[in-house]
Amino acid sequence: MSIAYRRLYDFFMSRRPSPRSAPSSRHADKGPHRSGNADRPPRSGKPASGYWIYGHHAVEAALNNPDRVILEFLATQEAGAAFSQSSRARPQTVDRERLDRLCERDAVHQGVCLRVEPLEPPTIHEALERPGPMLVLDQVTDPRNIGAILRSAAAFGACGLLVQDRNTPQESGAMAKAASGALDLVPIIREVNLSRALATLQSQDVWVVGLDAGGTRLDGASFGKRRVALVLGAEGAGLRRLTRETCDEISSVYMPGNMESLNVSNAAAVALYELARPTE
Amino acid sequence: MSIAYRRLYDFFMSRRPSPRSAPSSRHADKGPHRSGNADRPPRSGKPASGYWIYGHHAVEAALNNPDRVILEFLATQEAGAAFSQSSRARPQTVDRERLDRLCERDAVHQGVCLRVEPLEPPTIHEALERPGPMLVLDQVTDPRNIGAILRSAAAFGACGLLVQDRNTPQESGAMAKAASGALDLVPIIREVNLSRALATLQSQDVWVVGLDAGGTRLDGASFGKRRVALVLGAEGAGLRRLTRETCDEISSVYMPGNMESLNVSNAAAVALYELARPTE
Repeated sequence: MSIAYRRLYDFFMSRRPSPRSAPSSRHADKGPHRSGNADRPPRSGKPASGYWIYGHHAVEAALNNPDRVILEFLATQEAGAAFSQSSRARPQTVDRERLDRLCERDAVHQGVCLRVEPLEPPTIHEALERPGPMLVLDQVTDPRNIGAILRSAAAFGACGLLVQDRNTPQESGAMAKAASGALDLVPIIREVNLSRALATLQSQDVWVVGLDAGGTRLDGASFGKRRVALVLGAEGAGLRRLTRETCDEISSVYMPGNMESLNVSNAAAVALYELARPTE
Repeated sequence: MSIAYRRLYDFFMSRRPSPRSAPSSRHADKGPHRSGNADRPPRSGKPASGYWIYGHHAVEAALNNPDRVILEFLATQEAGAAFSQSSRARPQTVDRERLDRLCERDAVHQGVCLRVEPLEPPTIHEALERPGPMLVLDQVTDPRNIGAILRSAAAFGACGLLVQDRNTPQESGAMAKAASGALDLVPIIREVNLSRALATLQSQDVWVVGLDAGGTRLDGASFGKRRVALVLGAEGAGLRRLTRETCDEISSVYMPGNMESLNVSNAAAVALYELARPTE
């Protein structure tokens, strides 16, 4: 490739959106210091460890999470001022353009970027030590949907988000941004076999409710003091047969209008709200 | 530019995401046949009238809407088979690559694309002839958020979506896809002045509830038989001062967890659900 071509190639490649949750960023390795999940490879060619969290809420929540391993903290002078007093890590002051290059295209980083290690996923038993319902996702793959669902899970007090490891993207900047801090508040439990994980929940006296068309109306009051796990499937496909058969009950969100379904993040928010809302 | 450069340039440009709801696609013209809102300009250089709706649900809903002006209907042989019997328009069979080029990057068109005119926005009075609460968005600008909100509005039986014309993107393929058919079920009312529009609602005995932090708990049962308009602000900024002051009441969604807020599409879904859910 000639130098002129090379420059043109670099110019266009620098404008490509970076891949989000590409299969190559998934790891079987569960060690606390697994690497390679950075949003964008560094220019040196050697993959950086960890990945970049960006945006004020997401960065603040990561800094406040004692379990979060911080590798690097960059901020513009203006945005960094809010962090320099109170935080456990001091930001290195950089210009905005450097942060633009670190993040995905069009990412709203608000002048702060934090390179972190992914969190160590807890076990089901560890997550159940926290109060609240468990949320389970069967084949939901969009990182921003998962982020928005984590945010609702934090808002309505869920104890954790249980997913199938193989089909779920790893933590990423886009997921953390959509979660708006909830990635560091609600643990993600990653299991190899989802129906076996549901059986484990059942063995711990958790009532497993699949959210799908054709079920009874989801009614939070009907569960009394029983602990509930809510299982949501991918949009379109719904719950897989084996997942559906493992559930103790199939319920549907009450929808008087003329739509078949909500998007998965809205369905999760409404269902969690129905479980959490006060019943007079 | 040399021919080799030109080819490389075209190659990369063809991989750029097309602009979504760019300011240039907004029109003051409200005529029924306004043009230029296509997702992507055609190769001839002359802008095509209307815009492309894609995806099975969105295309089907547009075909079933008698008010929707259809300009062109393209489908792959496989996907078109489902439409050729029942629809008012017959698809022209094309190959998948042609549809890939018509849609935004990474758009899941499912083999069907429909070029349509935007719908003529109704007045507030026309929308109030339908049953259900009115949903009002103050400065929500993301087309996919608006689409997801339309889907929830259809699911929970809202009579319409009222927005400020100047700050709200026009109908687009991305909005229609996120709405999954609801763009052709829930009318969008576009008003120049939002607080004046809220006053018009109040003059029609609609109780205007602003959804914001620090309000009373949103309780659907408390409104009795009163018709309600729910007003949601942009994420982060919340309701603008004048909008907030025009509301009859400020309410907040009950959230027992430790998040300040939900994302706007989830907040809309939960609030509409709270108004629609059966109260025993």
